[in-house]
Amino acid sequence: MTTKVFGHKAPDTDSTGSPIIWAWYLNDVQGVPAAPVLLGEPNTEAAFVLKHWDLEKPEIISGVAEGEKVVIVDTNNPAELPEGINKADITAIIDHHKLVGGLETKGPIDITIRPLACTATIMYDLIGADIAKAPRGIKGAMLSCILSDTLEFRSPTTTAHDKEVCEALAADLGVSINELATAMFEAKSDVSSFSDAELLRMDSKEYNVDGTELRVSVLETTAPKLILDRKDSLMASMEGVAKEDGADQVLLFVVDILNEEATLLVPNDLVKKIAEASFGCTVSGDTVVLPGVMSRKKQIIPALKV
Amino acid sequence: MTTKVFGHKAPDTDSTGSPIIWAWYLNDVQGVPAAPVLLGEPNTEAAFVLKHWDLEKPEIISGVAEGEKVVIVDTNNPAELPEGINKADITAIIDHHKLVGGLETKGPIDITIRPLACTATIMYDLIGADIAKAPRGIKGAMLSCILSDTLEFRSPTTTAHDKEVCEALAADLGVSINELATAMFEAKSDVSSFSDAELLRMDSKEYNVDGTELRVSVLETTAPKLILDRKDSLMASMEGVAKEDGADQVLLFVVDILNEEATLLVPNDLVKKIAEASFGCTVSGDTVVLPGVMSRKKQIIPALKV
Repeated sequence: MTTKVFGHKAPDTDSTGSPIIWAWYLNDVQGVPAAPVLLGEPNTEAAFVLKHWDLEKPEIISGVAEGEKVVIVDTNNPAELPEGINKADITAIIDHHKLVGGLETKGPIDITIRPLACTATIMYDLIGADIAKAPRGIKGAMLSCILSDTLEFRSPTTTAHDKEVCEALAADLGVSINELATAMFEAKSDVSSFSDAELLRMDSKEYNVDGTELRVSVLETTAPKLILDRKDSLMASMEGVAKEDGADQVLLFVVDILNEEATLLVPNDLVKKIAEASFGCTVSGDTVVLPGVMSRKKQIIPALKV
Repeated sequence: MTTKVFGHKAPDTDSTGSPIIWAWYLNDVQGVPAAPVLLGEPNTEAAFVLKHWDLEKPEIISGVAEGEKVVIVDTNNPAELPEGINKADITAIIDHHKLVGGLETKGPIDITIRPLACTATIMYDLIGADIAKAPRGIKGAMLSCILSDTLEFRSPTTTAHDKEVCEALAADLGVSINELATAMFEAKSDVSSFSDAELLRMDSKEYNVDGTELRVSVLETTAPKLILDRKDSLMASMEGVAKEDGADQVLLFVVDILNEEATLLVPNDLVKKIAEASFGCTVSGDTVVLPGVMSRKKQIIPALKV
């Protein structure tokens, strides 16, 4: 039986690249039949990365069958995985997020969670000396995953080890980190083809903060103007998206990668209150700039107060 | 702040030895202040192991404070940990049991779960070359944990890697595996000082099987007669223990380590039905022998049907 390897819904570069890396390792090094799959269309950056490294786009699946062998990467959150995930035969989990509870396994399995910026960095460590056997596309996917998750080392989630692994891969491949990262971030910034609702859901996770269900969306971009020019219609779409997704409010943070700051849209008094309580800022208009804020995991979620 | 390292309630050898091993590693190799603690009196085998390797008995604690730094080893089950464990600052989890869900962490942390027989084997791998710095007592604790959890390689949970690590440690320490294991199992078999209720709870985990809450107790012994001679009063105590612990029934499996079989006590029709449905046996009296059954994790839990 082929093991399906996948990351979270709404796949970004790490959730697209890491399944490809691990399926290669299972197939070509461990001799375990495996295939990478996706739980949705890859975002524009991930699509660029697939093309750039000449990697086939994995099949998109909509669910998993009972007893099906699966490896979960880049998440341990059942809400970001197919319904019925606990009925699958989960054989391994590789992740770099906090343990949220909810996943169950039938027996003891391999679980590796590390406080690193990127799943691909953990895979590099687990693969060890066998990395020498990896084709160019696999090493390239690793490099791209780390650049994406660290925002080229700008994100405060970046560890010295992520950077070290990234630099070793770039040297091995003979590519310029800055050129690759720039091209990736440009691809991610090209959001013209997406509707407002799609943008609000693109890189979005739900959190319950003090009883209020918040859909916390982050758009990382080198061209914040493209998004902020649409702020009125984005704000007008928030109520409908929140309602459909069972949330009380959407928070949209537009992260300016190059200037290392986030702009939060402030459509109403609830968000104004949240912004002032969480980030100690004063909100006057319908946006507020948060200098230095780049990471949902490290800077936004831990700060949120309602 | 000192990090407290502990295993599960009702500590056996692995849940007593592994905290000592990991606290040594944190203190002496990583430079992180840490102390092993216990969530109850160690069992007779664990007490023997402490004495044999001249290790100090860790402090027994009854709870953890909010925000206290803790490392959890040999379990990931909140039911086997202090109440309020999710309010502690869990900094790492090292375990070899199935993921049951329920533990949550505040941020991404180090989690290593492997399908090996023993937590100490995983620690040996994580410690790597630094094992050379370990004092005799730490290596001895590792060796004893593996012998305990594998029942000297008899348990079907034993992997080639557990055996290999155990043999390397024994060679390094210059001790006979068989002599040490025999002394440990004799210590574990000395249950004369325990009440019936204590025996029923000594190595016991609760599972909900098809809506019935079962307290599944296992007593591993080289002297099954000592326990089976007390079967009438053990069976008479089951109803009271089940009631106090919120279970529907206690199942007591007496595992004969040397003869590699388990004897299940059959106090009533419910247990008779469970035994016949789960193990395909025919029960005539108030006990039934299950040849080859030694492991709750591998052989008992997966088979249980009500």
